[in-house]
Amino acid sequence: MWHTPHGPVPTPAFMPVGTLGTVKGITPDQLRSTGATQILANTYHLALRPGADVVAELGGLHRMMDWQGPILTDSGGFQVFSLAKLTKIDDRQVVFRSHIDGSLLELSPEKAIEIQQKLGADCMMCLDECPPAETPIERLKLAVDRTTLWAARCRDAWNSSSQALFGIVQGATNREMRERSATALLPLDFPGYAVGGLSVGEAPALMYQTLEWTTPVLPKEKPRYLMGVGTPTDLLEGVLRGIDLFDCVMPTRNGRNAMAFTSRGPVKMRNLIHQKDLSPLDPACSCLACTRFSRGYLRHLFIAGEMLGPILLSLHNLTFYQTLLRGLREAIIAGKAQEFRTSQLAAWGESV
Amino acid sequence: MWHTPHGPVPTPAFMPVGTLGTVKGITPDQLRSTGATQILANTYHLALRPGADVVAELGGLHRMMDWQGPILTDSGGFQVFSLAKLTKIDDRQVVFRSHIDGSLLELSPEKAIEIQQKLGADCMMCLDECPPAETPIERLKLAVDRTTLWAARCRDAWNSSSQALFGIVQGATNREMRERSATALLPLDFPGYAVGGLSVGEAPALMYQTLEWTTPVLPKEKPRYLMGVGTPTDLLEGVLRGIDLFDCVMPTRNGRNAMAFTSRGPVKMRNLIHQKDLSPLDPACSCLACTRFSRGYLRHLFIAGEMLGPILLSLHNLTFYQTLLRGLREAIIAGKAQEFRTSQLAAWGESV
Repeated sequence: MWHTPHGPVPTPAFMPVGTLGTVKGITPDQLRSTGATQILANTYHLALRPGADVVAELGGLHRMMDWQGPILTDSGGFQVFSLAKLTKIDDRQVVFRSHIDGSLLELSPEKAIEIQQKLGADCMMCLDECPPAETPIERLKLAVDRTTLWAARCRDAWNSSSQALFGIVQGATNREMRERSATALLPLDFPGYAVGGLSVGEAPALMYQTLEWTTPVLPKEKPRYLMGVGTPTDLLEGVLRGIDLFDCVMPTRNGRNAMAFTSRGPVKMRNLIHQKDLSPLDPACSCLACTRFSRGYLRHLFIAGEMLGPILLSLHNLTFYQTLLRGLREAIIAGKAQEFRTSQLAAWGESV
Repeated sequence: MWHTPHGPVPTPAFMPVGTLGTVKGITPDQLRSTGATQILANTYHLALRPGADVVAELGGLHRMMDWQGPILTDSGGFQVFSLAKLTKIDDRQVVFRSHIDGSLLELSPEKAIEIQQKLGADCMMCLDECPPAETPIERLKLAVDRTTLWAARCRDAWNSSSQALFGIVQGATNREMRERSATALLPLDFPGYAVGGLSVGEAPALMYQTLEWTTPVLPKEKPRYLMGVGTPTDLLEGVLRGIDLFDCVMPTRNGRNAMAFTSRGPVKMRNLIHQKDLSPLDPACSCLACTRFSRGYLRHLFIAGEMLGPILLSLHNLTFYQTLLRGLREAIIAGKAQEFRTSQLAAWGESV
C-alpha cells in the first residue's frame, strides 16, 4: 500500500497511461470501473500540448481530466530521448526539437520539476538520461552519473510537500552500472525509486535478470517502480522480483489495435473465426465488453472501423491488467505468489 | 406516444443514428443517458458489413448492439442512390456496386423487407427511389410511381407482426408530386408514413414549404417521420408542421468534428478562445461533458487528436437534441409550441 494525497494505492499496482491527460477513449468513470487507482500522465506531451501553464490554469491535471485518484507524471526525459530530435546534451540540460512543430526547447532537472509541479501530480519523477540500447560502457557510465547529478538537482528543486519525487535508476542491462546508479541515489533518500531504461528492445530474460541485480539494492519499504513495462508476463515476473508499480501503454494500444488479453491468452479480434461467435470475449471477465457483447459484434466493430471497438477492447484490457494485479496482491498476502505466476502462465499458454 | 415491441416512444422524438449497429463512439448506457428512446440503423451498411445473416446469427440488432429500446431501420434505398454506384434500375429492382468493395448487388422491395426482418428492427421502411435534387418533373414522376409500386410490394412481403412498416412519400419539392405520392400510399394503410427525399441540398424554407404540402395529406393519428433531418432549427420547424420522428447524423458527426450545439448557439471547440476557459461547454446541459469538464480541456482533447473529444461532444450534442425534443413535447402539451420555437431560435441567435 502506498499513500498519496489522492488516496491509497494498493501495491503491486498497474498505472494506465493517460499521456495527454486522457486514457485514450476512456472516460474517468469507465477507468475507475476497471479497478485502476493510480494513473500516469506524460510530462513531455503535456508540456507541448496544451502546455504546463495551461494545465495549471485549468486547475491542474486532476481537475482538468476529472481524475480524483492519484496521478504520477514522468519527467519527460524518456520522450526527449526517444521521440524528439536531440540537439545538444550536457550536464546542464538537454536541448531538443518538439516532435510536433520542430520548435527548439530545453529541459533541465529544475525545469522538469517546475513543469511537474505545475501539472500537480501526486508523484513526480527525476529527469534522467536514457541512452539507447547497446550504448558502449563508457558512454553508459556518463549517462548513469549524469542521471545521479540530475537526481540531486531535482531533489534540491523539489519544494512541494504534497508531491512525492522518485529517483530513477539507469544502467541498461549492465550489473555494475545498475548497482552504481542505485547506490548513488540512495543517499538522496527519495520517497520511491524507479527502474528506467528497460523494455527498450532487450530480451525479457535479460530484463528480469537486470531487475534481480537492481531491486535488492533499493529500499524494500519504499515503492519500486518499473517504468514503461509491460506484458502480463512482465508484470508477474517483475512483482516476483520486488517491483511495486508498473505503467504501460500496452493494454490500451493493443486494445485499439484489436488485440485482447484474456484469461486463456491473447485473442486477435479481427480474425474471421469470431464472425458469428455469440460467446463473450472472456467469460472470466467482468468488464463492459465481456458482459454485454459477443465476440462477433466486437469483430464487426473493428472490421467496420467503428470507434466503439477500440473503446471496448481498451476497457477490457485495462480490466484484465487490474484483475491480474488484484490476483497478485491476494496471492502475495496468501504467500502463494509463485504458484499464482505458474498457474497464470499455464492458462495463457506460455512456457512456465 | 408511439408504441413498439421494445417500449413506448414519446413523440416528437429524435433518433440517434447507429449506422453500423453502433452510435459512433457511444456505449448503449451512455446513449440511454442522453435521453434517447429509439435509434436508427442503416440497412444498406449492415447488409454489406457484417451482413444481414451475420446480424441474425448474432441475435438480431437489439441483442448484437445491446440496445434494448426500439430500433428503426431504413430500407437501404437512400444509400443505394447516394453512396453506391448505380448500375441499373427498373421496376423490378435496383442493381448497384458496393461502395466498400465494388461487388455487384441487387436490392428489390422484397429483398429490402427480408433484410430488415433479419435485422429484427421494430420498425422497417419501404424501399423507395430517391432521385437526385433538380430531377426533371417527368423523371420525378417515374420515381414517385415506382416508389408507390415498391411500397405495395413491400407491404405484401411484410409478414412479421412484431415489426412495423412505414411507407415513404417522395416527390422532391414539387407540391403536385408530393400530393400524388402521399395520396397513392394512403390505401396501403401503413402503421406510419415517412417524408423522404428532403434535406438533400434544397433551401430550408423550401423544405418547410414541402412539409406544409405533405403532412396534411398524411393521417394525423399515425407517426409522421422526416427522414435524415436535421438541424435543431429543422426539428422545431418540422414539429410545428406535424412531424413526429426525426433522425440525423448531425449531432454525432458535428460532435466528432468539434462543433457543439448549445443553449446559446453553436460553439466551435477548437477555437483558441477556449484554451484557458474553466467554464463548462453549456451550463444549461446535464451531460457528462458539461458537468465534469471545462471548455479548455475539451479544446485540448480536439487539438491533441484524442478520442475522448469526439466521444464527449457526441454525447453532448445527442443530449442537446434529446433535451430540445423533451422541451418541445412539454411545450406541445402546454399549448405553447410556437412560443417555444421563438424563444429557442432567439437563444441560439437565429432570426425568428
